[in-house]
Amino acid sequence: MTEPERIRRLIRAGGITGTSRGLAPGYVQCNVVILPRDFAYEFLAYCQRNERACPLLEVGDPGDPVPRLLAPGADIRTDVARYAVWRDGVRQPDVTEITGLWREDLVLFLIGSGITFDAALDRAGVPTDRHRWVLATDRPTAPAGRFAKPLVVTMRWLTPEHAIRAATITARFPRNHGAPIHIGDPAGIGADLANPLFGGPVPPLPDGLLPVFWACGVTPQATAEAARPPLMIAHAPAHSFITDLPAEALMV
Amino acid sequence: MTEPERIRRLIRAGGITGTSRGLAPGYVQCNVVILPRDFAYEFLAYCQRNERACPLLEVGDPGDPVPRLLAPGADIRTDVARYAVWRDGVRQPDVTEITGLWREDLVLFLIGSGITFDAALDRAGVPTDRHRWVLATDRPTAPAGRFAKPLVVTMRWLTPEHAIRAATITARFPRNHGAPIHIGDPAGIGADLANPLFGGPVPPLPDGLLPVFWACGVTPQATAEAARPPLMIAHAPAHSFITDLPAEALMV
Repeated sequence: MTEPERIRRLIRAGGITGTSRGLAPGYVQCNVVILPRDFAYEFLAYCQRNERACPLLEVGDPGDPVPRLLAPGADIRTDVARYAVWRDGVRQPDVTEITGLWREDLVLFLIGSGITFDAALDRAGVPTDRHRWVLATDRPTAPAGRFAKPLVVTMRWLTPEHAIRAATITARFPRNHGAPIHIGDPAGIGADLANPLFGGPVPPLPDGLLPVFWACGVTPQATAEAARPPLMIAHAPAHSFITDLPAEALMV
Repeated sequence: MTEPERIRRLIRAGGITGTSRGLAPGYVQCNVVILPRDFAYEFLAYCQRNERACPLLEVGDPGDPVPRLLAPGADIRTDVARYAVWRDGVRQPDVTEITGLWREDLVLFLIGSGITFDAALDRAGVPTDRHRWVLATDRPTAPAGRFAKPLVVTMRWLTPEHAIRAATITARFPRNHGAPIHIGDPAGIGADLANPLFGGPVPPLPDGLLPVFWACGVTPQATAEAARPPLMIAHAPAHSFITDLPAEALMV
């Protein structure tokens, strides 16, 4: 059994309930968006227009919960550790499986996650286990129909040397958010330091560290409130879906 | 006026009616697909699933003939030198503008073209002006709804040295078909040498040359006959749309 299969089986059995960070290093992890067919076209166009935030790696046929391309032995209804759910744009309590929520008109979208390049950063000596926040910004995305909200970013604090190394390395993962979209002053992209979406409050920047910003897979979640689909399901932040695909297969 | 603007203006005025090969070197050229909204979702999914053949660079809003992202000053109804038209899957005579065919439900898709990397091949001494054919194959594409036909390829005959150089160079253009999908025996992908879609009959292979195959932007045209949309409009082969985007902007 491969490492992704082993971990997905553990997740399915309830043996892993936390973040997917650090699990199955070297395999592509995906952010998840599940929408009714009626919203799928606009969301497909949204992904196409905002590839840095939403690098779409697979789109399913309506009603199909199996990622035929990226993990044909998996079931998206059980193989993510924690799911975020919205009804009419209102966030519901997180759940640990969505079998009961599945419908024949639901379409699965799998979007490359920045967690995929964590292993490469770790190997290069760039720390990935601290100084990381998910932040709203005022940088607009390209709208598509009902989907239109500003970019969400992952901010990391790095030394200048690590910032350069991280930019170089992540640029080789264009299907997992790729290179940074901004370096330096958070005000340059209107990053909201006061209200991180994930990762705890942002303390004062220590001397010698530089903020570096990547487009984040939480971006489409931010659109849910505005688009108000009757049902939208996503991975809970940092609880990504682990695919069978080696990260190298998508690297440049 | 930039070179793409100058050439599009000439095309619009009827001053250029032939191939776009060799025009505005260094700028991204795009294959064109225009479909009714009712077929757009399936075609978007088809592009996502077949990125080597259909690297989608822009999708318009229904009814909008302006490529807002790639050439905001252009009009897709007049700025391609020759258009192919299908009605209910049946090829109609080519036309030189489509203003009279335009409808409020038509969606514009712009797909990266291999013509984009011709200039880079030429600069590297790889000949692009001969030994080139567009061929049907038996290699299946990933279907999406009504869109499902085997891959169409561009075959070039190159010396081994040029083949290696061409593979290396074109790999840097992943949004314009990228690296070859096959090298060597045409039977390996079921390439139909007897009936080229474009480029004249295939003579016997001269000693010392190697067939090299790239996914081709004519692939979606082959799906039109099967999908049978009431109306489909595309560029005529080798008459691509010239964008304002420098090729470097999409290179890796």
